[in-house]
Amino acid sequence: MSTASSSITTNVSSNSDLTAILEPVASDIAAAEELLETNLIDDNPFVADLLAQVFQAGGKRIRTGITLLASRATQPVQTEFSRLHIVLAVLTETIHTASLVHDDVIDGAAVRRGKQTVNRKWNDRLAVLLGDLLFAQASICLARIMNPVIVGIYGQVLGDLCAGEIRQMRSQYSCEVDWDAYIRKSVCKTASLFAAGSHSGAILNGCSDDVVTALKEYGMNLGICFQIVDDLLDVTSNTEKLGKPAGSDLQGGLVTAPALSVLERNDGPALRLKELIRSRGIATEEGTNEALEIIRANGGVEATIAVCQKYAQSSKQQLLKLRPSRFRDSLEGLVDYVLTRTS
Amino acid sequence: MSTASSSITTNVSSNSDLTAILEPVASDIAAAEELLETNLIDDNPFVADLLAQVFQAGGKRIRTGITLLASRATQPVQTEFSRLHIVLAVLTETIHTASLVHDDVIDGAAVRRGKQTVNRKWNDRLAVLLGDLLFAQASICLARIMNPVIVGIYGQVLGDLCAGEIRQMRSQYSCEVDWDAYIRKSVCKTASLFAAGSHSGAILNGCSDDVVTALKEYGMNLGICFQIVDDLLDVTSNTEKLGKPAGSDLQGGLVTAPALSVLERNDGPALRLKELIRSRGIATEEGTNEALEIIRANGGVEATIAVCQKYAQSSKQQLLKLRPSRFRDSLEGLVDYVLTRTS
Repeated sequence: MSTASSSITTNVSSNSDLTAILEPVASDIAAAEELLETNLIDDNPFVADLLAQVFQAGGKRIRTGITLLASRATQPVQTEFSRLHIVLAVLTETIHTASLVHDDVIDGAAVRRGKQTVNRKWNDRLAVLLGDLLFAQASICLARIMNPVIVGIYGQVLGDLCAGEIRQMRSQYSCEVDWDAYIRKSVCKTASLFAAGSHSGAILNGCSDDVVTALKEYGMNLGICFQIVDDLLDVTSNTEKLGKPAGSDLQGGLVTAPALSVLERNDGPALRLKELIRSRGIATEEGTNEALEIIRANGGVEATIAVCQKYAQSSKQQLLKLRPSRFRDSLEGLVDYVLTRTS
Repeated sequence: MSTASSSITTNVSSNSDLTAILEPVASDIAAAEELLETNLIDDNPFVADLLAQVFQAGGKRIRTGITLLASRATQPVQTEFSRLHIVLAVLTETIHTASLVHDDVIDGAAVRRGKQTVNRKWNDRLAVLLGDLLFAQASICLARIMNPVIVGIYGQVLGDLCAGEIRQMRSQYSCEVDWDAYIRKSVCKTASLFAAGSHSGAILNGCSDDVVTALKEYGMNLGICFQIVDDLLDVTSNTEKLGKPAGSDLQGGLVTAPALSVLERNDGPALRLKELIRSRGIATEEGTNEALEIIRANGGVEATIAVCQKYAQSSKQQLLKLRPSRFRDSLEGLVDYVLTRTS
């Protein structure tokens, strides 16, 4: 286990790497940060405070970065970069943040990014309101972009986010999950928004269908990879690095890639893992630890890494359809960052 | 009190009146009902069940009716009625329903329309998810309409709904509320969505600015009237008719039109009412009953009725800018219905 796991962890991946990757759009990200915290709804200072708190709580701005890099990579030559791409990046990041705030209520989560969640720090009621407020801010951004195709793309993303949460909720402690269902859920929960961010800028730039589709597939594959790495880190990382309890997906009865990789072997360890999940024995600390051991000792980590690499490869391949640029290089660098991230 | 109050309650107002008023768009409403329950998000039967439950729980479909009547009243002659007006009505009703589901979580409400709320029947978590699902369905409707101006209008409505809820939350047990702040909050919470529904159809129909503005003002004034009548019923009605506990706004420390009408007199009863609110004595059953008595005995009901009538009048006046039709007659009838409704 340790060898394969270290192929993910020994590539030093830190926020300084990410900063270097995002450097070509650093000033665009700064403009997006400012707009993220701008109260678009009314002049109520309480609203401004809530927005500042939720966005200053951090986040790596990966979705902001992808959106801006893809927008810059497909910018028609000799044109000025439109402010609408900044709005698009803010829209993408805001929807992500809104869904996190509500997911934490739905999942009863206490900690995210090493800090108390809104529902824990205050209460469920304020978290519901704050999430709604963020969705409203996103709608106002969407309206500013004035493009019906992009309204359709992001409307579908909102539906996918809910569908993903429902699929996850209804598959807890079930071993009926197969790879198809798992990937579909990952598309809904994560990749759909990545794809929206990665190809909407090309639509605004009036790119050819080829380029638009390539960037959509880039984001879709990268998003699936991102989600699988997330699920892998639940098994390989620790609470301090993750900023949330390690093993918590397993404890909550979520069957993700590492467990699936073992379950499909259908051997003795697979049957024991199945038993732990079905009986909800996995919900105890002892059960979670036993499940983690089974997964680690039976190739669950290595098999998951192989799946991640497949999606990463598919993601990178799409970039060949873009003209060379430092923005395209960074889009490629982001794939490596996502693949090797440790938190 | 009883005389003035009966001017509101003796005009027989029941769902059969409403059915007669909405009769010119009955088949459109039937089409909207079908779309309301359609799962636009995925093929998950659990989603379909949730939608059916929340929409079969009732509701008078006033917003659906206004939207469709205004669309029909401004339909260009010799053109076919576009299906997009049905989508617009569904969008309007869905946003309303989504905001009710989340407001019930935020307010901790147990009963609505005589039935247990989603948060009480199941839990807060499912209510958050269901509300998000409805907002996502609304976004997909909005995308189908393919009109950037209408995206802007409804984006603002979502912001207003949140701003209204925050204003309300932050003014509980405060006597700093004046008429301006109260009307602004009512616009945010209620009238903004009424206005969106009433004038967006005219935009789709390509009407002149005069007609569009008249219908926006119609909806805005009707929505304010609707909210004030709602606040009046909290004082004049009973729990059985309301389908939720009477006096609950007062008990929750919300200073609305009936209380405002007394507070602005600044006399002995006004000071006692102020004391009950500030000390939170009003939060007890005894305190609520004393406040109700003060309001009823000091002209709070009559003064509120006068305010409602003013907004109703302004609403009706706008209709003179539309060509005569049975749809326009029904829009006028709706104002009377809203003014005289008892539940």
